[in-house]
Amino acid sequence: MNPYSTQDTIIALSTPYGMGAIAMIRMSGSESIALTNRFFESKFGKKDLTQMDSHTVHLGYIHDGNQPIDEVLVSIFKNPNSYTGEDLVEISCHGSTYIQHSIIQHFVANGVRPAEAGEFTMRAFLNGKMDLSQTEAVADLIHAQSEAAKNVALKQLKGGFSNELSEVKKQLIHFASLIELELDFAEEDVEFADRKQLENLVQKTIVHVEQLAQSFKWGNAIKNGINTTIVGRPNAGKSTLLNTLLNEERAIVTEIAGTTRDTLEETIHIKGFLFRFIDTAGLRETEDIVEKIGVAKALEKLHQSDLFIYLFDSNVTNLDVLSDDIQNLPTHIPHLIVGNKSDLISLEKKSEITLIDKEIIFISAQLKEDIEILKDALLEKLALHNIDTSATIITNARHYDALIQVKVSLVEVLSGLKEGMSGDLLSIDLRQALYHLGSITGEITSDDILGNVFANFCIGK
Amino acid sequence: MNPYSTQDTIIALSTPYGMGAIAMIRMSGSESIALTNRFFESKFGKKDLTQMDSHTVHLGYIHDGNQPIDEVLVSIFKNPNSYTGEDLVEISCHGSTYIQHSIIQHFVANGVRPAEAGEFTMRAFLNGKMDLSQTEAVADLIHAQSEAAKNVALKQLKGGFSNELSEVKKQLIHFASLIELELDFAEEDVEFADRKQLENLVQKTIVHVEQLAQSFKWGNAIKNGINTTIVGRPNAGKSTLLNTLLNEERAIVTEIAGTTRDTLEETIHIKGFLFRFIDTAGLRETEDIVEKIGVAKALEKLHQSDLFIYLFDSNVTNLDVLSDDIQNLPTHIPHLIVGNKSDLISLEKKSEITLIDKEIIFISAQLKEDIEILKDALLEKLALHNIDTSATIITNARHYDALIQVKVSLVEVLSGLKEGMSGDLLSIDLRQALYHLGSITGEITSDDILGNVFANFCIGK
Repeated sequence: MNPYSTQDTIIALSTPYGMGAIAMIRMSGSESIALTNRFFESKFGKKDLTQMDSHTVHLGYIHDGNQPIDEVLVSIFKNPNSYTGEDLVEISCHGSTYIQHSIIQHFVANGVRPAEAGEFTMRAFLNGKMDLSQTEAVADLIHAQSEAAKNVALKQLKGGFSNELSEVKKQLIHFASLIELELDFAEEDVEFADRKQLENLVQKTIVHVEQLAQSFKWGNAIKNGINTTIVGRPNAGKSTLLNTLLNEERAIVTEIAGTTRDTLEETIHIKGFLFRFIDTAGLRETEDIVEKIGVAKALEKLHQSDLFIYLFDSNVTNLDVLSDDIQNLPTHIPHLIVGNKSDLISLEKKSEITLIDKEIIFISAQLKEDIEILKDALLEKLALHNIDTSATIITNARHYDALIQVKVSLVEVLSGLKEGMSGDLLSIDLRQALYHLGSITGEITSDDILGNVFANFCIGK
Repeated sequence: MNPYSTQDTIIALSTPYGMGAIAMIRMSGSESIALTNRFFESKFGKKDLTQMDSHTVHLGYIHDGNQPIDEVLVSIFKNPNSYTGEDLVEISCHGSTYIQHSIIQHFVANGVRPAEAGEFTMRAFLNGKMDLSQTEAVADLIHAQSEAAKNVALKQLKGGFSNELSEVKKQLIHFASLIELELDFAEEDVEFADRKQLENLVQKTIVHVEQLAQSFKWGNAIKNGINTTIVGRPNAGKSTLLNTLLNEERAIVTEIAGTTRDTLEETIHIKGFLFRFIDTAGLRETEDIVEKIGVAKALEKLHQSDLFIYLFDSNVTNLDVLSDDIQNLPTHIPHLIVGNKSDLISLEKKSEITLIDKEIIFISAQLKEDIEILKDALLEKLALHNIDTSATIITNARHYDALIQVKVSLVEVLSGLKEGMSGDLLSIDLRQALYHLGSITGEITSDDILGNVFANFCIGK
């Protein structure tokens, strides 16, 4: 956690750094509206920003005491109805970096502190505007690169995950309170809680927590995209395949100035998931990549992949060579074997090829034939094909670790129940499970956890 | 001018491209509020954005019909009280590029057209929210890199330049109307306008227009900064000087994530003017740069400079060598000859050096002595030292060209007056002067001019 006071009024550039039409500077804290007002001159007559309603926008100049710095739009948000839960001001200025600097500089010179990374969101947490898992969702949203990643993060921000956890928690607290009630009447040796019923409840909860934790195996693919390599001998049609996959997608991407085409060309969205094609230019041009795949640098690249496609020309490839190549593929990495130029081969050759590996997929990259089959196979290979991204999915390693701890504690409880363990010992494990659950939403937290969570943020959020 | 209809509702990302805490998307046109409303779901109960007051902000979700795309803040501006003079909506979303794309994409799929560069500002012009020179000031503000550039642009945006032109115009129209009144009474051969008085008026106006046009010689330095090279033999202290100049300035620059230090190191603000130090690493290391300056590539770099500093070590430099070096400097480029390490030399040697060139400036870069003198000399060399940046200064070549045309026409009027030219001929030249004046503010304009003006804009403004 940052060493600064949460009482300070803080300021930061919230829009991406660089020149643009408009930049937005955010200021939060008890002094934010009064200070803005001090250096604000309305374009239409005198105006006292401190007297304006929350959620109103005002056109005027920010001046430095002597002369105007820029013509701006100022939006006023009043405590507690703001992002941070504090008084908050958003200043939209002309997007020159010089002007951005000057305005921030001016307020810093007048006692406002530059915000730390994530400090606005941390204040939202500290002021009860969102729980800890929701603040993490904010960071995930900002980094979201695909529909799946965005949907999961947005659901988490809306409190979907928190609600699910609070269901689990409610059950455990009910259970804990029965156990602890027994402790109060320990001398009387009563059992308020039917042990069999409790066993069932804990068993169910373990399954639920396990399901949540298991969803993390998709979490990384959803959040960070899927690193995919296309390998194969020269002229197998690797570039054509990449272009075919890209062309379909490019049409639905709005061109925005500044998007570098190079970067776009390496990224493909398939059914809402981000596939990131690692540059394998070297691989494509080396004559003997497949034979030497065990030793070549290419292997390094392949090893970084979550998935690879081995592409071959099904028309000209010698069957013995193909068989050898396939034998030499690193089988511990999920992969698809794809025969290209399927439009050119005879049914007979197709059958012969299928004898080598019956899961070979045939496509024609050039004619765009069976590309949908390939896409489905890519998702299926990573078990992403029937994920319900509207369900709760864990994308955060911190949440995963906590859920595993919850499970460990609950397994202790369960075996304790089976062994007829005393209520006070059961209670310790139960409290442990509740502690780890609470750490996810931040009810139970430490400066270390907070520090880690907000270190992942960018400045200005 | 772009080929699209001004009736379309348009959309663009207005904040810089890339990931940031927040991104802002702008939509302008008659459909903007209704369309936003159609895909907006308030976070707090039902809300009809079309019924909300202008200049209000609303928290909620933008959805695509099925599911939310993002949690956003929507600001409503109602015609004519908006930047463009049309209904206008600003959507602040989470700054993921995926989310930015998705929101824009969604509205484009629902009939909104992606805006052309500068199209929002062009609409402001077409709807009478600003004149043409004010729209140019918007582009200048966005590109402003120094206080001087920003001040000049902001004054122009506030209408300072337009007001000054309108004063000139008023005088000329008054004059023209007297002349043209005479034409109506041509048969009676009367003179409503005292020719001597008219001569004085035209003379004064010419002086005024000349002053404005002359200010353009500073315009480039103000707008684009001053390319400055430091040359000199090894160990003259060039890097130390650069660091000394930088260190003072760096302290007043707010660090913003993403600012590359390399770029900062090459840019120095001196009294509000931007000095851009061109990388002369090569120059610094070459032993014989000054002797060979006439032939070396170094000359190319020097020739691109607006200004250069020839720096020498006043303590160890041989006077004959120094004298030779100075003789070989490209004198057609403004430059300063600066003796470094002045703290180490005797008064006697200082006098001897001064005999070579009495304008040599002595400093100690290491001890930071007389750096202010050097700074003043830099500004003085370009006649920037006593410019009043609050006066009207022409920074735009289009305006300069127009003013020169105004002057040419007025000189014609003046000589016509002196030669007793008839009113109808005087009137033609006068109308010509008024035409060129009008082209600056856009009262008189053509699609070509508009096309040129708005081509300089970025998307989203």
